[in-house]
Amino acid sequence: MTPFMNNDFLLTTDTAKTLFEKGAKNTPIFDWHCHLSPKEIYENKTPSGITELWLGGDHYKWRAMRSMGIDEKYITGDADDFEKFAAYAKTLSYAVGNPLYHWTHLELQRYFGIDTPLNEKTAREIYDECNRQIASGGFTPRELITKSNVKCVCTTDDAADSLEYHALLKKENLTFKVLPAFRPDKALTIEAATFIPWMSAMQKRCEMKIESFSALKQAMKSRIEFFDEMGCRACDHAFNYVPFAPATDEEIEAIFKKALNAEKITTDEADKYRTALMSFLAQQYYGLGWGMELHIGAMRNNNSKMFMSLGADTGFDSIGDDEIALSLSRFLDSLDKKGCLPKTILFTLNPKDNYVLGSMLGNFQSSEAAGKIQFGSAWWFNDNYDGMREQLKALMNLGVIGTFVGMITDSRSFLSYPRHEYFRRILCELIGDLVEEGKYPADIDFLSKLVEDVSFNNAKEYFALTE
Amino acid sequence: MTPFMNNDFLLTTDTAKTLFEKGAKNTPIFDWHCHLSPKEIYENKTPSGITELWLGGDHYKWRAMRSMGIDEKYITGDADDFEKFAAYAKTLSYAVGNPLYHWTHLELQRYFGIDTPLNEKTAREIYDECNRQIASGGFTPRELITKSNVKCVCTTDDAADSLEYHALLKKENLTFKVLPAFRPDKALTIEAATFIPWMSAMQKRCEMKIESFSALKQAMKSRIEFFDEMGCRACDHAFNYVPFAPATDEEIEAIFKKALNAEKITTDEADKYRTALMSFLAQQYYGLGWGMELHIGAMRNNNSKMFMSLGADTGFDSIGDDEIALSLSRFLDSLDKKGCLPKTILFTLNPKDNYVLGSMLGNFQSSEAAGKIQFGSAWWFNDNYDGMREQLKALMNLGVIGTFVGMITDSRSFLSYPRHEYFRRILCELIGDLVEEGKYPADIDFLSKLVEDVSFNNAKEYFALTE
Amino acid sequence: MTPFMNNDFLLTTDTAKTLFEKGAKNTPIFDWHCHLSPKEIYENKTPSGITELWLGGDHYKWRAMRSMGIDEKYITGDADDFEKFAAYAKTLSYAVGNPLYHWTHLELQRYFGIDTPLNEKTAREIYDECNRQIASGGFTPRELITKSNVKCVCTTDDAADSLEYHALLKKENLTFKVLPAFRPDKALTIEAATFIPWMSAMQKRCEMKIESFSALKQAMKSRIEFFDEMGCRACDHAFNYVPFAPATDEEIEAIFKKALNAEKITTDEADKYRTALMSFLAQQYYGLGWGMELHIGAMRNNNSKMFMSLGADTGFDSIGDDEIALSLSRFLDSLDKKGCLPKTILFTLNPKDNYVLGSMLGNFQSSEAAGKIQFGSAWWFNDNYDGMREQLKALMNLGVIGTFVGMITDSRSFLSYPRHEYFRRILCELIGDLVEEGKYPADIDFLSKLVEDVSFNNAKEYFALTE
Repeated sequence: MTPFMNNDFLLTTDTAKTLFEKGAKNTPIFDWHCHLSPKEIYENKTPSGITELWLGGDHYKWRAMRSMGIDEKYITGDADDFEKFAAYAKTLSYAVGNPLYHWTHLELQRYFGIDTPLNEKTAREIYDECNRQIASGGFTPRELITKSNVKCVCTTDDAADSLEYHALLKKENLTFKVLPAFRPDKALTIEAATFIPWMSAMQKRCEMKIESFSALKQAMKSRIEFFDEMGCRACDHAFNYVPFAPATDEEIEAIFKKALNAEKITTDEADKYRTALMSFLAQQYYGLGWGMELHIGAMRNNNSKMFMSLGADTGFDSIGDDEIALSLSRFLDSLDKKGCLPKTILFTLNPKDNYVLGSMLGNFQSSEAAGKIQFGSAWWFNDNYDGMREQLKALMNLGVIGTFVGMITDSRSFLSYPRHEYFRRILCELIGDLVEEGKYPADIDFLSKLVEDVSFNNAKEYFALTE
Repeated sequence: MTPFMNNDFLLTTDTAKTLFEKGAKNTPIFDWHCHLSPKEIYENKTPSGITELWLGGDHYKWRAMRSMGIDEKYITGDADDFEKFAAYAKTLSYAVGNPLYHWTHLELQRYFGIDTPLNEKTAREIYDECNRQIASGGFTPRELITKSNVKCVCTTDDAADSLEYHALLKKENLTFKVLPAFRPDKALTIEAATFIPWMSAMQKRCEMKIESFSALKQAMKSRIEFFDEMGCRACDHAFNYVPFAPATDEEIEAIFKKALNAEKITTDEADKYRTALMSFLAQQYYGLGWGMELHIGAMRNNNSKMFMSLGADTGFDSIGDDEIALSLSRFLDSLDKKGCLPKTILFTLNPKDNYVLGSMLGNFQSSEAAGKIQFGSAWWFNDNYDGMREQLKALMNLGVIGTFVGMITDSRSFLSYPRHEYFRRILCELIGDLVEEGKYPADIDFLSKLVEDVSFNNAKEYFALTE
Repeated sequence: MTPFMNNDFLLTTDTAKTLFEKGAKNTPIFDWHCHLSPKEIYENKTPSGITELWLGGDHYKWRAMRSMGIDEKYITGDADDFEKFAAYAKTLSYAVGNPLYHWTHLELQRYFGIDTPLNEKTAREIYDECNRQIASGGFTPRELITKSNVKCVCTTDDAADSLEYHALLKKENLTFKVLPAFRPDKALTIEAATFIPWMSAMQKRCEMKIESFSALKQAMKSRIEFFDEMGCRACDHAFNYVPFAPATDEEIEAIFKKALNAEKITTDEADKYRTALMSFLAQQYYGLGWGMELHIGAMRNNNSKMFMSLGADTGFDSIGDDEIALSLSRFLDSLDKKGCLPKTILFTLNPKDNYVLGSMLGNFQSSEAAGKIQFGSAWWFNDNYDGMREQLKALMNLGVIGTFVGMITDSRSFLSYPRHEYFRRILCELIGDLVEEGKYPADIDFLSKLVEDVSFNNAKEYFALTE
């Protein structure tokens, strides 16, 4: 029996151990997609304790607790910190096979040096020890990022954002970079209640009236240029399916005007508008060499009651199942035909689409970049042992793993970096198995370098990250 | 080499063996969804032989035989009992990797003490021995249920059913319960030829005219109350996709009238009607604390010729592939908003939807029950080693396995209980692997209890089964 | 550690090794679906070198090279032969886990006796040695087919094809058969630009005017009869989804006339036409006992720019994700009702549909043939270790593996036969595992015969191949 989560965790062969040691263990992290708050990094406060760190905003943990039947009081309510921690500890024991189990214990081991499994019996002792350590220092955002060997993080920022904290952080003497990433979802969801308020914010930010689609394009262009000046290398878009509904300029202007007048926008109209705006945006991204992330398949805010009381991103999202192949193909082709298809990273939330996306890449590769079109790592509900293996295997079967830009945390937590380690262990296990089963030659130097590339170098080159 | 299906069948680690021994082996069965006939349990006849028991109504076996190219004469036709048995024995040898292979041999081992593999050569000997044993007694429905350590079965009953055999069984001194479960499919398939005949049956049963949708609601309410008095704890609905098409009361009444007049009902109309009726029914279920099962994704009666000659449930159904995420989410949310979302169990026949359903659960959990929204066990075409592992892994990755209400036979056969054993062995193997691979601590007492919970206790509590 | 791709490659148990030795190793190949050129087999030229053999037309390799970021010059451009070879060698090293890695090395081992792994460092030496061997002879199409123990290949031929090379080959004294297979895709894609030119070709070939749908049916009938005389045993159809849209004869004639007049055909019209033509064709196939292959789910020619410069089948296809269950079921049922459902083989390119197709089979089996409705082997983007295992497991779980007609290369290359060996090793590994894990009795004689059946005998019988 292998001991619980020891040094060889997931490294089931000698080859896996060697590859991890040589290619992954000390390789830095470039977390090119996350949801960290630049404000929090700037302010750099010591957290109040482990409950704030773990349960302050982590909807993965909240979901698990709700599945256990825990009352909302102990999740987002007014229970005290230990009660919440104990409720999570109890839940965790029953969540056998859930990635939270491994993430939680990796965090206890790596940041607190605690090897004891967390459960109802050990909750008090672990809670006290974590809080003692936090109080003694070393747990501010910057300290955690530094300790985690992170060279760069890309945050996720609205198109109308001031990026003021990014500006402030630039002036600090940091050992890591904090770059913005452009996420104009509110510009694209023209049918949503958020559209008009967002338009106001944009007008203020750009100091211009935006009364036509062509004015919006100008405004977006100026924001993109500003983001680029601030070091932005990536943008990000969330879609149930990537729309492709070409329309005339006149149609788009008419739809835009309807939206400004708060008239109801149909799905067909919204898709036409989105197609037009995405085509414009992609052209800008291409010009600046940005990587364009497309996150496909999240069905959000399913629970109206909880949305009213807690808002978005609180654990009430799930996996959609729209058809995605045809319109995604046509959208990418429309850009490619015009010679302005950016480097693109396709993420799916629905594992049924692993082979659809994995084969889609190959349609639009070019010598502009190694792996110009990328298959994003297993994400959110797939960010677990099985999900990561399935994504990696699909990528291996359909493409060239050696060009993969690898893992991201996609996280709001400053303790989430062991997920890179988790990913790297899984990668080393998979490759180690191929070698030990006689499916790939035992060329350890080459493979160690490949592991290092996937862990860090490829992303650095892909996003043209400078030292 | 592990011997063929010995005591350690599927228990590939020491931990798996211990968990099975401590948590599963002697744990009773609560089979909360099956298709047993209460009449047959009441009449309690000795079967005519193994051919009746195995091939009298088992469409799984019939399908396999047809795939082998066996003539219908030897399946549902007038061949003699041994000819049919021999045809099945031959088929089985060629069905390497099919769950029938394991079910058949588990049944031979557990009920007949026969360890010999069944094939063309051994068919005669095994046929004779089975029939000798059956003739010597111990093979009536009640004896088989008792031998199988079953505490309770829930049958599947039409809304218009008299439940007369349930009433008769209540008066018997049984060691197990036979409870009805409410399955009003014929009330919901308003567009089908069965609707008007079913309405007649309902009117007779309820001793009232049902000439409006609101009258139907009253009638359904009275049936639900009657089922509840008879001990019903669960209801069940079959859908290709769960519809969600809200409409006004007037629209629903108009659609209902069209149906009563035998006018053609469109899919859109049928979905509106179904949405309205399901909303009403769910409200009743919630009030009574029933568990609401939704079986999604079966495409039935694909073969018109065979449907004409053999009717439904004869082996001509297969897996559908409709989009299910959005309307299912909206349906559950509509109930949750009104505060009347019942405990719900989501089953999918299409494994592509394992992650859609597994993540859907989390949108609507609450402290009303541990695992209020459940992911139903792998069902029908997924009720096999791989299918069960995939469902369990999806559930583990996305939720809290410790609250799972576990396995059901979904069967018409009194010999099907070893499928619970099969499931438990797979569960123990999976958890055993996690422990032995260092992915979960070796807390055997806790995990044995968890196995027992998933095997029996959770379902007992979830459905509020009383002793 | 197992040595790299030695004799026991993929044969991970003793049982697997025995099954491969007894049932697969020396069993001949019947490659009943491929894209070999009968002209090339007739002309029987020695290839110019390994670059022509490997990179002359293999879009699998081209895709991988594009994913690596290789410039088109080194793929389909004017780089010299060694430069192209070296670019492929480099790509291959980075394609860890890609089936090309195994196919390439199986071909080096089996045809060239080269055991050295191919990479940037060994490229020159391997290139020279391959070219030396090719120049010394033994690498003509006929020699490669003979060396590979192939008894028969079925090519893929347009309905208007003259089959002149098949006629010429019939007169040669070959050790293997080269049969045509009927692939009337251009007759079915009525909405495509290819339709009118194809109609001209058909009119010329059939020496008749085709000015009505009923005339087309006559023409197709005459072609089918001609193909049958030339030894054809199979036909093949490519669909995103199998359409089923019944219409009147008048509607079909009207749609056909629109198409002849080069008017725009809607998807709905095209589907009606396709349904009518497929129903007619299937009836003919049934009459002649042909096997009807349906290849479902390829989304082709996604890259307009590359389609303009390189044409079809150049590496720009990917996996579609249409709903397929309902219309496929209705189409097969419509034939079955009329008593003219041919033997049918269902292939899916989207692995999400493995269980949809695997369960669809069972709806329409009959005693006309063992496994009358077949689940085609893992194809194209699934033709890899994982994809083949998944297809085999789905087939095992849902049907009777013993009747399976097995593997095909689907290839344009005369070096592709080791893919049969690859498939057979995977099959033996899977069955070997079942035996060694106690899931199937160790009846080696029976299982060796079953492996041989799946490898060759079943297909021979299914397609009624005569010696």
